[in-house]
Amino acid sequence: MRVNAYAAPSAGQPLAPTTIERREVGANDVLIAIEYAGICHSDIHTVNGDWGPQPFPVVPGHEIVGTVTEVGSSVTRHRTGDRVGVGCMVNSCGECDNCRRGDEQYCARGMVGTYAATDRDGTTTQGGYSTHVVVDADYVVSVPDSLDPAAAAPLLCAGITTYSPLKHWHAGPGRKVAVVGLGGLGHMAVKIAHAMGADVTVLSQSLKKQEDGLRLGADHYFATSEPGTFDALAGSFDLVINTVSAPIDVSAYLCLLAVDGALVNVGAPAEPLSLDVFSLLTNRRSFAGSMIGGIAETQEMLDFCAEHGIASEVEVISADQVNEAYERVLASDVRYRFVIDTSTMG
Amino acid sequence: MRVNAYAAPSAGQPLAPTTIERREVGANDVLIAIEYAGICHSDIHTVNGDWGPQPFPVVPGHEIVGTVTEVGSSVTRHRTGDRVGVGCMVNSCGECDNCRRGDEQYCARGMVGTYAATDRDGTTTQGGYSTHVVVDADYVVSVPDSLDPAAAAPLLCAGITTYSPLKHWHAGPGRKVAVVGLGGLGHMAVKIAHAMGADVTVLSQSLKKQEDGLRLGADHYFATSEPGTFDALAGSFDLVINTVSAPIDVSAYLCLLAVDGALVNVGAPAEPLSLDVFSLLTNRRSFAGSMIGGIAETQEMLDFCAEHGIASEVEVISADQVNEAYERVLASDVRYRFVIDTSTMG
Repeated sequence: MRVNAYAAPSAGQPLAPTTIERREVGANDVLIAIEYAGICHSDIHTVNGDWGPQPFPVVPGHEIVGTVTEVGSSVTRHRTGDRVGVGCMVNSCGECDNCRRGDEQYCARGMVGTYAATDRDGTTTQGGYSTHVVVDADYVVSVPDSLDPAAAAPLLCAGITTYSPLKHWHAGPGRKVAVVGLGGLGHMAVKIAHAMGADVTVLSQSLKKQEDGLRLGADHYFATSEPGTFDALAGSFDLVINTVSAPIDVSAYLCLLAVDGALVNVGAPAEPLSLDVFSLLTNRRSFAGSMIGGIAETQEMLDFCAEHGIASEVEVISADQVNEAYERVLASDVRYRFVIDTSTMG
Repeated sequence: MRVNAYAAPSAGQPLAPTTIERREVGANDVLIAIEYAGICHSDIHTVNGDWGPQPFPVVPGHEIVGTVTEVGSSVTRHRTGDRVGVGCMVNSCGECDNCRRGDEQYCARGMVGTYAATDRDGTTTQGGYSTHVVVDADYVVSVPDSLDPAAAAPLLCAGITTYSPLKHWHAGPGRKVAVVGLGGLGHMAVKIAHAMGADVTVLSQSLKKQEDGLRLGADHYFATSEPGTFDALAGSFDLVINTVSAPIDVSAYLCLLAVDGALVNVGAPAEPLSLDVFSLLTNRRSFAGSMIGGIAETQEMLDFCAEHGIASEVEVISADQVNEAYERVLASDVRYRFVIDTSTMG
């Protein structure tokens, strides 16, 4: 099956319209007519070859919402006409301890990414900047009807990437949570942490987005560039979610944590970070990482967002605006996520 | 009250016999006739001025076991003739959230160290290389009769420093625990983790102490200098306790952790460590720190050690051997802790 898509022909090249082959719908597969695909910073990293050599052309996109148009003979989980989502992962071994526990993202044999990855059948995966995709039904989640499909798309990466650590580290009533950076990930972290009942603080370089931050659910907002901020907030938080991929002064952020507090990175800078271990010893602090979430947890996150009436703040674009959108993402000029309307791919 | 002690007159100078003043026994104090004082690597760091400027002369020693010879009028917790212990901390504010929760070691106003610290009355504390010490009864623990007093002394620092993170991070049946380094702290970590029921692995530079390690309770022993060790053990452990203060390759050790595993430092190198955040993202790993333990937890540790018949492996020395012992500690030539018999101070 030949379908329309937008692909980067080689590293650093602009994306352009093309057609790609999607596999036959297997017994456990679903065919999805894609409606919306979010633009994640990872898409840009991949297209630019920032994460090492990889196959080209690449069709990015791992924040996918669409409608099921065909199901394989063994599929019971989804039906034709269902609105569904696909996130960062389309396969895993399904047999290791991690997969069996629902932590497919930490599959011991390696999860299969939605694009630029080698699937278990040996083919290279291609992502959601496309009109259709065929995915194993076990890696497809249901999008509740009450969620706007365009605003729901970024939940499949930005949503689960922040929901999972917030839940794992017990964000909720009586807990003080700080979110570093108010971008695509950060704005979801604020909404979700607020909905979980936590006391939420945004730590941003400046106060430029303060009004937005408070509207999205933050209780407090501080500029990290302002002298005295780190001293004033020392020992304050139970959990700090760092959504900024650029290198930060880890030790300074660790000092913001109370006893047993954790600083959790959901992104990773390319270069190693330097850390003063004394900042970990005091207050028995942790510096941790978290990567998306499992499939069952992704479903739980979507249901949680539907129940609390939250989704991403999006700017919907047509497919031919994708290169311009990439430039604006790199310039932090988006509030807060671009979503491609894939009907514009013809 | 003037008592005999061994003190370093200034930074880097050998310790020499002297006398020091101990305060009057206050209403909530106990006077302890010290029997044994362990030699901790921290004592040597302090004497050498490695941790910055501090008052001299300094009497080191925060692994103290002795007998109560006098109690203040309000003391109900200890009685004359009781065998008791004092660890790294002799005071804290007692009022902050951390103190009230039993985490006095993380006192928001700063715990008072057993030596070279400013006590709440403004005097400078002096440690256990001495015949007597006066300590607030709330910071004195009971040493069970079944423990040999010399072998129990190192429990007050090396014991609690390893017991606390082992307990906090759930060492026990079905959990795989690795201990990095088999020195004063490491040998206690092995004994305690084994007594807790965990599957215990020692990761040491060489196999020189393998026989000892297995005798002390380790189930497995690996040389980190041997090629292939890190690959073979990737993703294996729930908890890695790093007892080595010298800088390690944190990212390499993080990769040994299974999902939700933690690498916990109980010491801190003077220089910052470099860390690849990707090693945290995979498997949702944590790099954490831990510092001694609270007073109630220290009592719990002593009771646990008595119940399981474990204590430190010690080499008892006379006070005039202390400088030689320091040299041997720096050369890692001790199995596994020197303890000063303070009756030799005359």
